[in-house]
Formats: sequence, C-alpha cells, structure tokens
Amino acid sequence: MDNRTGHRIVPETAAPRGERRADRNSATRYGNRPTMKDVAARAGVGLKTVSRVVNGEPGVTADTERRVQEAIEALGFRRNDSARVLRKGRTASIGLVLEDLADPFYGPLSRAVEEVARAHGALLINGSSAEDPDREQELVLALCARRVDGLVVIPAGDDHRYLEPELRAGVATVFVDRPAGQIDADVVLSDNFGGARDGVAHLIAHGHRRIGFIGDMPRIHTAAERLRGYHTAMTDAGIPVTNSWTSLGVTDPQRVRRAAEEMLSGPEPVTAIFAGNNRVTVTVVRVLAERSRPVALVGFDDFELADLLQPGVTVVAQDAAQLGRTAAERLFSQLDGTLVTPERTELPTRLITRGSGELAPAK
Amino acid sequence: MDNRTGHRIVPETAAPRGERRADRNSATRYGNRPTMKDVAARAGVGLKTVSRVVNGEPGVTADTERRVQEAIEALGFRRNDSARVLRKGRTASIGLVLEDLADPFYGPLSRAVEEVARAHGALLINGSSAEDPDREQELVLALCARRVDGLVVIPAGDDHRYLEPELRAGVATVFVDRPAGQIDADVVLSDNFGGARDGVAHLIAHGHRRIGFIGDMPRIHTAAERLRGYHTAMTDAGIPVTNSWTSLGVTDPQRVRRAAEEMLSGPEPVTAIFAGNNRVTVTVVRVLAERSRPVALVGFDDFELADLLQPGVTVVAQDAAQLGRTAAERLFSQLDGTLVTPERTELPTRLITRGSGELAPAK
Repeated sequence: MDNRTGHRIVPETAAPRGERRADRNSATRYGNRPTMKDVAARAGVGLKTVSRVVNGEPGVTADTERRVQEAIEALGFRRNDSARVLRKGRTASIGLVLEDLADPFYGPLSRAVEEVARAHGALLINGSSAEDPDREQELVLALCARRVDGLVVIPAGDDHRYLEPELRAGVATVFVDRPAGQIDADVVLSDNFGGARDGVAHLIAHGHRRIGFIGDMPRIHTAAERLRGYHTAMTDAGIPVTNSWTSLGVTDPQRVRRAAEEMLSGPEPVTAIFAGNNRVTVTVVRVLAERSRPVALVGFDDFELADLLQPGVTVVAQDAAQLGRTAAERLFSQLDGTLVTPERTELPTRLITRGSGELAPAK
Repeated sequence: MDNRTGHRIVPETAAPRGERRADRNSATRYGNRPTMKDVAARAGVGLKTVSRVVNGEPGVTADTERRVQEAIEALGFRRNDSARVLRKGRTASIGLVLEDLADPFYGPLSRAVEEVARAHGALLINGSSAEDPDREQELVLALCARRVDGLVVIPAGDDHRYLEPELRAGVATVFVDRPAGQIDADVVLSDNFGGARDGVAHLIAHGHRRIGFIGDMPRIHTAAERLRGYHTAMTDAGIPVTNSWTSLGVTDPQRVRRAAEEMLSGPEPVTAIFAGNNRVTVTVVRVLAERSRPVALVGFDDFELADLLQPGVTVVAQDAAQLGRTAAERLFSQLDGTLVTPERTELPTRLITRGSGELAPAK
C-alpha cells in the first residue's frame, strides 16, 4: 500500500486565535491587497467558509458559494501562488529551523522545503537548534531580525510564546514534525502514534510478546507519541509491559547499544525490538548483527540501504519530503492570505516489510 | 592507518592578493584593534612572519621572533579566539552555502561548522545552491545582505568574482570541498586526486585490469580530480583505458544504473568499479546486489552501514567533519586577524577495506 500522497486536515478548535492570525495577515502585512477577511466581511460569512470556497473544499451551500464568489470578484481578491506577495525591495526568503543537521531524516525534508521556496521565488535559509530550546529561540529570532518572510520550525522547545511578537508583526510560521508549545500555530505532523502502534502490532502478529521499545527523550513529542503507540498496541493485545522493556533517552550509539544489550540479556530477554527512530535503528541493527540468535526488528523511519541489509529492515516509513512540502506550501498559503486558521495536518505512515519484522520469536 | 587529524598547509603563491586581504581585515573591519599588520609594520617584518610567530610555526629566527613578540606586547595585540571580534550590536553569525541539503556527506560537515561557530558564540545560517551557480551567487549575496560576518562556501560555480566587493567590505570567506574560481581565497579540500588514485591502485593490486569509473559531472572540481586519479593509477600500471570504462554525469540513480549496467555487459565487461562519490556508490551497490557474478567495488566517501552490507563496501573515506571544522576555524582566524594570506589546505583520505574492494576478478 502506498498512501504517501493522502493526508487529512484537522481543524484546530481554537477559533478565536485563528481570527487573530487572520487579523495579522490582513492588516499588518500586505495592507492594500484584499484579503480573505475582506471577502468574508463583504459576503457576510466566516473566514473558514471563504477558505473552503477558495480551496475548492466541500461543505458550502450553493447560495453561500455564489455570495463568496461575488465578493471575490467585487474586491478583486485572488489567491496568489507566486512570490509577489513577499516583501518588495528585498530578497524574498524563508527560514527553516532544524533539529540536527546531520540526521538524514531532515535531508529530504529540507530539500522539499527548499524546492517549494524556489518555486515561489524565495530563498531558503536554515539553521539547527541541536535539540536545544534556547538555541532554537536564538536562531528563530536571528532569522526574524534578518527579515525572513516566514519560518518553518522543527521545534526543540515546548514554549513558543517568544514568537508571539513576531507572529503579530506578520512573520508566517508553520511547525513541522512536532507541534508548537503554548501558542496556536499551524503544524504538519506524521501519525507517530498510529505508525508505532501498527509497527508493534505487526510484531505481535508474528508471535512476539516480549517486545522492547528504544526511543528518544520523552520530552520530544514524536518520542512520546511513538511510546504511546507501543503501549496501546501492547494493551490492545493484552500484554502487560515490564519496565525493563522500554528505554528512552538520547539516541547516541553508546546509550542505544547499552539499552539493546540489556533488553536482550537476562532470563527473559525480549524477542523483538521496536526502534523509535532511524538513529536508534541503525545502532540496533549493529547490535543484532553481532548476535547469533535472531531478534525481530521494526524501526520508525525508513533509511537508505535498509532493503539491502540481511535481513532487510522492516520500517514504519514517514514521508519526510511530503512533510516538508506540505509545511512549506502552508507557509506560502499564509503569506498569500489564503490560509488564515491554524490547523493540524497529520500525514499517514506506511509499514514496509522487508524481513526483520517478520522473524518469529527465537525459542 | 588513521591520519584523520594530520593535514598540510600549502601557501598560495599569490602574495599581492594576500596583502589585499590583510588590508581588508585590518582597516575595514575591526578599526581600532591592533592587527597582525600593525605588528608586522612595527617589527619591520612580513605578515607571514608574524603569522608564524602567533601560530607557533617554525621558520623564524630567534631574533625575529623576539622583535615580533616585542611589537605584540607594545601594541597590545592578541589573538582572539572568542566571538568578541564579531560585529557588535548584532547577533554574530556566519553563513554556510552547501551544494545539496539531502546529500549525507554534508551532514557531518555542516554540523562541524556549526559546532565551531557555536564555540565562537556565533550562529550558523545555511542554504543550498542545488548545484546551480546562479543560485549559489544569489544565496551568497543574500547572506551578505543579511550581514553574516563570514561565509563557508561549497561552490557550485567556477567564477567567484561577484564576491570581490563583499571581500573588500570585510566578509571573511573560506571555500571548502572545492576551490573558488577566478579569485584568490582560502580553501580546504580533501586529497581527491590521491584518494582516487590509491583506491584504483588497490583494485589493480587485487588483479583487476578492466576497471570502470562512474563519477559526477566533470565540471565539478572533485569529480575531475578523482577522474584524474583513476587515469593516473591506470597509466602507472600500464593499463590503457577504454572509453567505455568511464562515465561522468549527474549522480541520480537512473543515470548511474545505466552506466554501471553498460560497463558490466558486452564481451569484455569490467571486473571492478570505482564509484566517484557516495551517491554513485549506493546505486552501484544496488546494481551489483542483483547480479550473480561478483564485481569488485571501491567507492569514494564513506557512508552509513557500508560495513554491514555483504560484502562490506571498501571506501576511500574523506573526513567530512574535519573538512568543516578546519574551514570554520580558518574563517574565525580570518575574523580575528590572525589569518591574512589565503591558503590551500589539503586533508588526506583514508582507504578502509571491508571486502568489496578485495574481490578477485571473476573468470
């Protein structure tokens, strides 16, 4: 099954904050161009209705659609897909704040953001927080001071109120991979919970009951969601989880190796491991390659050459490029005024079976 | 042999341009602080001599060293390893211009540059040229317009005269991985020629004569140097090279796959392939995995999991992190005035044998 292109848009419930975002876009930024808010006012409908009409989404009556279309024509509003909405007299640019420059997961994501930026005539400038919230803030504010038009942020921190003045000043912002904290902002995520749950259920379906989980630090949204998926799959199968089966922490090889070796030793070793991200998976692959007894493995995130290892590594794949592309497209929709309400977009994951996840429990 | 840390500094011959760089650093940028040029003038010696004394390098007589030390003390000059040389009242930052955000070779390089920047209290901002010279120029100038203090550039183009006004205005610049074109600038490279020559000689030593070379576009410095290494190794061994054994072009999987399959077919197929970079190597690994007859392989660049493939992939490893670290350190030496003459620094490569490069020619 390949459902890479499908994704669902989940409206945020916080409508008042969405309105504030709309104010920002219409008043502060592109003063003289008619905005969706102007269209909404003239047509006597809500912003979301205008958005539905502009984006060709269902849920609008024929009469309402006609009124909106009339307002659009009367005001000369048009959805703008080019860079002409970007600030004049400067090089149009957007910023991307990553977590780790050396993590291959972010390569395709960055490149996808860059391709969308380029299609809109904008440069991409990026930097890395190295998983440090202070550094994330410093970098975000430095990019704002350098007048980027918008930001795509993979957050390290969980409190983004420092961004509020920038948002009010008109800097478009989309969070990706992990949600913003303490503010209402657009976010594009993978289905981390569902992906992990399905991956662990896959191991259970192949006869495993003692299944280990090795993941990133629990304060990281993706790590917490994947752990939740693990627990849900185990609970759904009626398997009580022993404390020693789960290990969360930094993903450096030493820590992960120790965690894996501990789970694999003792009188009742795990017979399968679910690895919480690609950094964990490659270390677990190394540990398992040194052992004679086969241990099943499913990893979150696909990685290069996973299919050429022996056995091939079964993974829960995220579409990193699609995450980046979706986030960047939403950013430019904010900039051209067609996107006014923060939403949460969740992209599906995909289980790719290659052998390691289909091994039976060793006797 | 592990010679990761060793590197040699090759002074550029263009002394007059080096002087111009010195002028820039002393006069334009950090007006009131005594510079190495001031020290040189007071001691009555050349800049290079002051640099040798400051950096503890040999080649200076005791008497000259004493005069330089006296001038240093009299003027209060000191080598500055912190960020205090960076422009006041702004967030200190340096820019990094990469070639491709999704190429894993640049991950460790970027992270190393970032770590050095952080140690100097500066933020790293980067962008990617996507191997397009116009985009490289656009990005470099956009970063300059946003007031970065210095630039580390992996160039896509071969004419960097557009940078001259920026250099005169005091933007420190170091090129890495590939040299600058048409200007005299600091550059940090791997020994691409020597590494490729040694890798091909390794295949010859294991009995191969029909050896293919698949590389990147020949206008790229690294690709041209590695091809030169291949030809030199073949010539040194008295093996005439047939045209059909070399293939240069873009490194996307389709092109590389076609090139490999052509070399491996026909009445006199190659028995070994030298892959010009990591993008080429991973595709060749795939092609070879589909074939029953063993074909030897040596790849330029190490890559993750190369040791866990069967056979393990023998590579000519560059130290990407050391390239980035060296370039960034030289950039900060320019900024603090201790580095005044553009130089070419060449880092050694390292042959790592893992099995694929030690296969004998198939009969």
